[in-house]
Amino acid sequence: MQFGTVCIVGPGLIGGSIGLGLKARNLVKTVIGVGHRVSSLECARKMHAIDTGALQVEDAVGNADIIILATSVNQIVDLAKRIIPLMKSNAILTDVGSTKAYIVEQITSHLRKDVTFVGAHPIAGSEQRGVEFASKDLFVGATCIITPLDVQSKESETIAQLWRLLGAKVTYLSPQLHDEILSFVSHTPHLVASCLINAIKKEYLDCGSSGLRDTTRVASGDPELWVNIFKQNRENVIKSIDRFIVELNGFREDLLTKDNASLLERLTRAKDARDKIFSNNVTV
Amino acid sequence: MQFGTVCIVGPGLIGGSIGLGLKARNLVKTVIGVGHRVSSLECARKMHAIDTGALQVEDAVGNADIIILATSVNQIVDLAKRIIPLMKSNAILTDVGSTKAYIVEQITSHLRKDVTFVGAHPIAGSEQRGVEFASKDLFVGATCIITPLDVQSKESETIAQLWRLLGAKVTYLSPQLHDEILSFVSHTPHLVASCLINAIKKEYLDCGSSGLRDTTRVASGDPELWVNIFKQNRENVIKSIDRFIVELNGFREDLLTKDNASLLERLTRAKDARDKIFSNNVTV
Repeated sequence: MQFGTVCIVGPGLIGGSIGLGLKARNLVKTVIGVGHRVSSLECARKMHAIDTGALQVEDAVGNADIIILATSVNQIVDLAKRIIPLMKSNAILTDVGSTKAYIVEQITSHLRKDVTFVGAHPIAGSEQRGVEFASKDLFVGATCIITPLDVQSKESETIAQLWRLLGAKVTYLSPQLHDEILSFVSHTPHLVASCLINAIKKEYLDCGSSGLRDTTRVASGDPELWVNIFKQNRENVIKSIDRFIVELNGFREDLLTKDNASLLERLTRAKDARDKIFSNNVTV
Repeated sequence: MQFGTVCIVGPGLIGGSIGLGLKARNLVKTVIGVGHRVSSLECARKMHAIDTGALQVEDAVGNADIIILATSVNQIVDLAKRIIPLMKSNAILTDVGSTKAYIVEQITSHLRKDVTFVGAHPIAGSEQRGVEFASKDLFVGATCIITPLDVQSKESETIAQLWRLLGAKVTYLSPQLHDEILSFVSHTPHLVASCLINAIKKEYLDCGSSGLRDTTRVASGDPELWVNIFKQNRENVIKSIDRFIVELNGFREDLLTKDNASLLERLTRAKDARDKIFSNNVTV
C-alpha cells in the first residue's frame, strides 16, 4: 500500500496497465480513474484497473498522493494546469508522455512550491489503444525514462520505485536528451514506416509478406496521437530524418556505383548492432 | 506421388520446408537434397525434409522430374548452367529466388528445347536460415509468384499446382513486374530497416522498444544473401528509394512548416492502407 491513493487520468492501454499492475501487486490503497466516457471507466473498473471512476479531474485529484497523467501528449499540459491548484500538499504529479521537453518546461512553470512534478515515459505499448488491451505486466522488462528536476529528491525516488515495482528498468535522463533519443528510436521509425506504406502502389501491397508487416506495424498506430508527438518533438525529428537520409543516400550511392563491399559493410553493421539489443528475434 | 522424384538444391529454410511439405502431404516419390555440408544434409534427412543427400548436383539431378534451386540468388544461374545438360527429357527446372528478371533471362538463354524452366518466388521466410527452422506449413497462406515463359504450358501448371498443394496462393507475373513490386514491398523496406539502425548512436539503442524491434527485424537477415538480392535488383531498388524519399521529404516539409493537417493526412493514409492488408496485427 506504499503509494496511498493514486489518480490515473486516462486509464487506457498505459494508464490501465499501471492501475492493474499497482493493484495486482497490492501497492496502493485506492486507484481513481478519470476518463471522458462512463463506459470506458466501467470497463476499467470491471478489469480491476481502477477502484472508482470520475469524469472530471476536479472530482478526483484532491485526495491523491500521486496523480498520473496518462493521456495523449497534447492534453497533458492543460490537464496539469487544472490539477495543480487542487493537489494536496506534498502530492506528486507525474506523466507517461512520449515527449518530455515541452511538457516538463510547461508544467514546471505552473508548479506550486509544495507539490512536485516528475516527468516519466515508460517505453512500452503497442499500436492498440484502450483499457481492454491493458495488462498488469505490460511494463515488465521495459525501460522507463524519468526526467526529474531534482534527481536526488525523495519524490523522484518514489516515482522511480513505482516503475521498478511494476517491473520496469528505470533510466534518468534530461528532458532534452530523452526527446533526442526518442526521436531516433521511436518517432522517426514510426514516420519511416508510414512513408514505406505510402510509397507503395495500392495494387502492390498484396505481395507484402511478414517482412513488410513487421517493418510497418507501428504505422497502424493512432494518427492523431502521433501528430501530437511529432508536434512536440519537431526539431529533433527533423534532425534524425536528416541523419537517416545520410544513411539512405549512402546505400543509394553504393547501389549506383555497384560498391558491393560497402553495401555488405552497411548491412553487417546494422545486423551486428541490432542483434546486440534484440537477441530474441520473433520469427514468422 | 504426383510430382515423382524431386531434387532440392539447397535444403535450408525454404528448400527444407518444400521437402517437408511435399513429403508430409505424400506428394512425391522421393526427395533428393543437394548441399555443401554432410551435417546439414544429415539434419535435413533426420527431419524428413529429404530422403537422400548428395554433395554435388552432378550426382543428384539425372533422374529428377522436378529440380528446385533453393540457394542464395547469386548461385542460382551458375547451378542452372551445370544442371541443364544433365536433366532428363521433359524435366522441369524451377527456383525460389527473391529476384527474377536476371535469373529468368540467364537461365532461359542456356535452356535445352526438351526441358522447361519456371521461375518462382514463394514470399515467405524469416531472418533465420537453415533447415532446422524449416516447417511443412511455412507456405500455408503465403503468396507464391510464378513467372513462367509460357503461362499456358503444362509445366507452369505443374509448378503452380505444387505451390498450391503446399498451401500457397499462386500469382502469375512477368519477371520485370515481380522485381519492381518486390523492390517496394521487400527490398527497400529491408534497406530502410538497416538505415534506421545505422542512423542511431550505439548508446541510444538501449532505449529502443518493441516498435524499433519490429521495424528493424529484417535487418537481422543475412548480409551476404541480401547484398546478392540488391545486386540483382539494383535499378528497381534505386527507383523505389527515390519514391520513398519523396514521401519522407513530404513529412519533413510538413514538420518544418508545422502543417499538422497534412501530417495527419499522411499518417491516416498509411494506417488505412496498412490495416487493409494486415488485419491481424501482432501486438506486443
